Amino acid sequence: MSCIVDFEPIGRRVVAEEGETILQVAQRGGIGLAAVCGGAGTCGRCRVQVMTGALSRATDSERARIGPDQLAEGMRLACRAVVLGDLKVNVPPSSLTTSQRTQVEGRALDVPFDPPVRTYEMELARAGRDDLRSDATRLCEQVQARGLDCTSIDLSAAQRLPVLLRTHDWRVTTAVARGRVVAVLPPGNPPLGIAVDLGTTKVAGYLVDLTTGKMLAAEGMMNPQIAYGEDVMARLTHAVQNEGGADRLQEVIVAGLNELACTLCAKASQSPVDIVEAVIVGNTAMHHLLLGLPTEQLGSAPYVAALSDPCDVMARDIGLTCVPDASIHVLPNIAGFVGADHVAMLLGSGIHNAGDVVMGLDIGTNTEVALKVGDRLLTCSTASGPAFEGAHIQAGMRAAPGAIERVWINEERVAYQIIGDVLPVGLCGSGILDAVGQLRKIGVLSKTGAMSREHPRTRQGARGPEFLIVPGSESGNEHDIVLTRADVSEIQLAKGAMRAGAEVLMEEAGITVNELDRIVIAGAFGFYIDVRNALRVGMFPPLRPEQFEQVGNAAGVGARLALISAEQRALAGEIAKRAEYVELTNDVRFTMKFAEATLMP
Amino acid sequence: MSCIVDFEPIGRRVVAEEGETILQVAQRGGIGLAAVCGGAGTCGRCRVQVMTGALSRATDSERARIGPDQLAEGMRLACRAVVLGDLKVNVPPSSLTTSQRTQVEGRALDVPFDPPVRTYEMELARAGRDDLRSDATRLCEQVQARGLDCTSIDLSAAQRLPVLLRTHDWRVTTAVARGRVVAVLPPGNPPLGIAVDLGTTKVAGYLVDLTTGKMLAAEGMMNPQIAYGEDVMARLTHAVQNEGGADRLQEVIVAGLNELACTLCAKASQSPVDIVEAVIVGNTAMHHLLLGLPTEQLGSAPYVAALSDPCDVMARDIGLTCVPDASIHVLPNIAGFVGADHVAMLLGSGIHNAGDVVMGLDIGTNTEVALKVGDRLLTCSTASGPAFEGAHIQAGMRAAPGAIERVWINEERVAYQIIGDVLPVGLCGSGILDAVGQLRKIGVLSKTGAMSREHPRTRQGARGPEFLIVPGSESGNEHDIVLTRADVSEIQLAKGAMRAGAEVLMEEAGITVNELDRIVIAGAFGFYIDVRNALRVGMFPPLRPEQFEQVGNAAGVGARLALISAEQRALAGEIAKRAEYVELTNDVRFTMKFAEATLMP
Repeated sequence: MSCIVDFEPIGRRVVAEEGETILQVAQRGGIGLAAVCGGAGTCGRCRVQVMTGALSRATDSERARIGPDQLAEGMRLACRAVVLGDLKVNVPPSSLTTSQRTQVEGRALDVPFDPPVRTYEMELARAGRDDLRSDATRLCEQVQARGLDCTSIDLSAAQRLPVLLRTHDWRVTTAVARGRVVAVLPPGNPPLGIAVDLGTTKVAGYLVDLTTGKMLAAEGMMNPQIAYGEDVMARLTHAVQNEGGADRLQEVIVAGLNELACTLCAKASQSPVDIVEAVIVGNTAMHHLLLGLPTEQLGSAPYVAALSDPCDVMARDIGLTCVPDASIHVLPNIAGFVGADHVAMLLGSGIHNAGDVVMGLDIGTNTEVALKVGDRLLTCSTASGPAFEGAHIQAGMRAAPGAIERVWINEERVAYQIIGDVLPVGLCGSGILDAVGQLRKIGVLSKTGAMSREHPRTRQGARGPEFLIVPGSESGNEHDIVLTRADVSEIQLAKGAMRAGAEVLMEEAGITVNELDRIVIAGAFGFYIDVRNALRVGMFPPLRPEQFEQVGNAAGVGARLALISAEQRALAGEIAKRAEYVELTNDVRFTMKFAEATLMP
Repeated sequence: MSCIVDFEPIGRRVVAEEGETILQVAQRGGIGLAAVCGGAGTCGRCRVQVMTGALSRATDSERARIGPDQLAEGMRLACRAVVLGDLKVNVPPSSLTTSQRTQVEGRALDVPFDPPVRTYEMELARAGRDDLRSDATRLCEQVQARGLDCTSIDLSAAQRLPVLLRTHDWRVTTAVARGRVVAVLPPGNPPLGIAVDLGTTKVAGYLVDLTTGKMLAAEGMMNPQIAYGEDVMARLTHAVQNEGGADRLQEVIVAGLNELACTLCAKASQSPVDIVEAVIVGNTAMHHLLLGLPTEQLGSAPYVAALSDPCDVMARDIGLTCVPDASIHVLPNIAGFVGADHVAMLLGSGIHNAGDVVMGLDIGTNTEVALKVGDRLLTCSTASGPAFEGAHIQAGMRAAPGAIERVWINEERVAYQIIGDVLPVGLCGSGILDAVGQLRKIGVLSKTGAMSREHPRTRQGARGPEFLIVPGSESGNEHDIVLTRADVSEIQLAKGAMRAGAEVLMEEAGITVNELDRIVIAGAFGFYIDVRNALRVGMFPPLRPEQFEQVGNAAGVGARLALISAEQRALAGEIAKRAEYVELTNDVRFTMKFAEATLMP
């Protein structure tokens, strides 16, 4: 039997079948419900409040994660609650994945403009009785006459050429790559390129004029795959364990990229038809899901990629209907968990050819660490988990409006800064890190993370000690925003993993922290954090704050470099080949260092 | 209002809208109704007999082409008669294009087996903790270890590889072309190739084992585009003048090729999934319609192709869903009306590197003529028209069951041979040619085609003199099968055009008929004709009958050669470059010779 489910305050109505979970209905309706665990009932992030209607009885897993008062108010886990009739469901902001802060900017590097796709404005000899060459031959020979290698033409360009020539007086803008005419455009239209940093959580896109290298627009969006699991492993699980799961994940990200391309063009008053090339970088899992490559072998030991070399595919072959005839260049992966996004980060930050000893960290649910020492470039990946995305944290949330992104605590009071002009809803990653760092600074937290009860805001919570950040009376919420001892443990585990990875790389390279000249922190989260608080929790090797560089989206910068410079694109290939991947799973050094790295200085 | 149209004796029921013509309804229903003129009401080939139901009144064009008796019996032109209610329509065999004799065989040439797609049976090292290479890298490096150039892999192969490796104990059949892995197959499966000769009327397909070069199956079919016009110009007109016309023509031929590929595989107990490459040859118009290239500039002076160079496209890019990941190699065109099929014919017949002076003719609605003299290879195209396909001939029909394919006439009697074990229905091309040749031999026809009344079978028909081949009393038809003076004129025009083309090429090359060593006749029609009768009507330069070679489908042979030999494929490219195209339109020599060539010796 069909039922109607109304989602509020979004105001979306979705037809459901009796027996579906609310999460399934929400996913089908394109509602960005957070599902960190991929719908396994374990993360507790997909809470919704059922206002009216018939549902299955609360499961044990829901009782374990939702208090009796909240259950009484209709709070449920969307992934467990089964629809039995028409429903009205309220989705709290903290359960939504959309309208969050995305970071698209990065520190730009200056490289000579030398795009792999070259553009020429051509005027061709007219066809006539004494010149019966085909249109394609006519064009290729004219390109060759400029001393260029050009022996063939893409079918889509050959299809467009005859009408273009005859409606524009035999003039045409010609895009040539790899010895081939890849596109023809009306005279005067610049060929466009897009660079995309395809993250597990966030996607950043850049529109570039390929005749000048100038960036015309930038735009960020959430990865719509989030509805099927918030971290890499949850996505891979969804892809492998659900029939058609991989196809669905490919469909939603492709739909997202189609939308991104259109939005970028609209912003710059350009047409997607003129996009001739895209460079896409993502971690190995995002790369595989986008290209429709199998992921089963990627999700289980020894975590092997199907494809790691750079490759060029036609956009239409992965369903990018907005730009069907564009070619997509995908940068190489280094290993199963060190992907093209890390290659792009190294390229975009310049770490790969730095003259000093430098460490680079790209912090996310997986954190990739790189270390450049002399000629060596070491990399590893650590599963830092989604704690910095607000998951597994009692009052945690993503960096969306209402999130507390900055916290200052002294012996008496607490000050904070909120994203957006709204009342506080919860703590996002940088806020959580601040809170832990500040509490360690004033001694409320010990090295091991034990919470002293001496501060007036410390109290005994339902599951142990907790620190009151914002009382409900102040936020207008029914509940207080707190940081619990368990939350502190989550942060210790997350930062411990990345710190241990950093330590293993230094040991592998045979250097000590004193020999490290600087640390580059890439990514959105890394851009917003307070390095001093990060140092207080021991997240990074103890350099002085001024030795840190927060470069923002360096992977996006790297993708742009590979779009506008053949040399940089080739360099990306070399970086992937050159990088020494250090596998941390079952590495005894990592296990040892990890335990130590969970402690705070 | 919707009506039901029943087509008999085919037994097909099609839903029609009031106001549609019967031809439109038949086309939609996939009924191969002959429409030589593309539905312009001028060829008179789409006669159908309406048994019951309401139609528009007969048009002038129908009155001009159908006698009053036949009109009274419900005979109409399907392209003119408009449906006004439910109908029962009888389609006479002579109006059908289907179930006709197709010629797929050709004289084979022996070339070394050296396919552009090479096959390797590989066993790969297993992935493990100490060997984390991606599957694609693992495979490419193993191919390189055999001393081969292989730097990349097609996306579709990369998608298939991980599961194949893990279900077949790390063994895999690998197909490599152009320095790239283009396909991976289960171990032991031979990669397959198909060669297709895509004619305006007939399509011939061949399935080849690419590990041995052995032909596994051959199959012929009619080009389903026939329903939209029987000759090249009618098709181009349909493509240009009807909205979506070109798309429709592409769709029907692609559907036909999908079916052909499946039929070939079924015949050889193989799977289309294992087809990795196809070589397709066709005239320039068929080439353009298949590839979705624009045809407007091809259909009007100066008749310029959009694309003439050889090209490789992915089958999925033209909708060949049966073999989506196969690559299609399309041989080059020489000019707007001398296509890749002629290149393949020259390759398949060996004319291109013959040591003697040889002329080649590929007879069809367009006849291509080639002349090899020393180092020169001259080509031209003549519009010989569809008379040899039975069109514009009173009792003409295609080479289908019931067609008279051989005729012997002496002073007293007429003997004939029929295709199939059925009563005679009409005359197909070779039968018509025989009849004209025999009548010229016994003097019933003069040099100019005038018909003497002295033979007992000569009589005055409705539109002039005619010769009785089969009386209705003998055939069981209501009408006699005759050859009219007008039919003889059609043959004179058709053969005159190709003969004049042959003469121009000889003049261009500076040779006389005495210097010609032999004439190669390619194509299905050319295979079945009696050369002596063809010489009696003056169709060819007057060599002795033993100087003629009837090689059958040489274009199909050429396509197969390009599939199994990289050298032959390269030769095809050279032939197209080397061939000197002689444009006959507005050539004064042609006009002069044409008038003379319409005469009979």
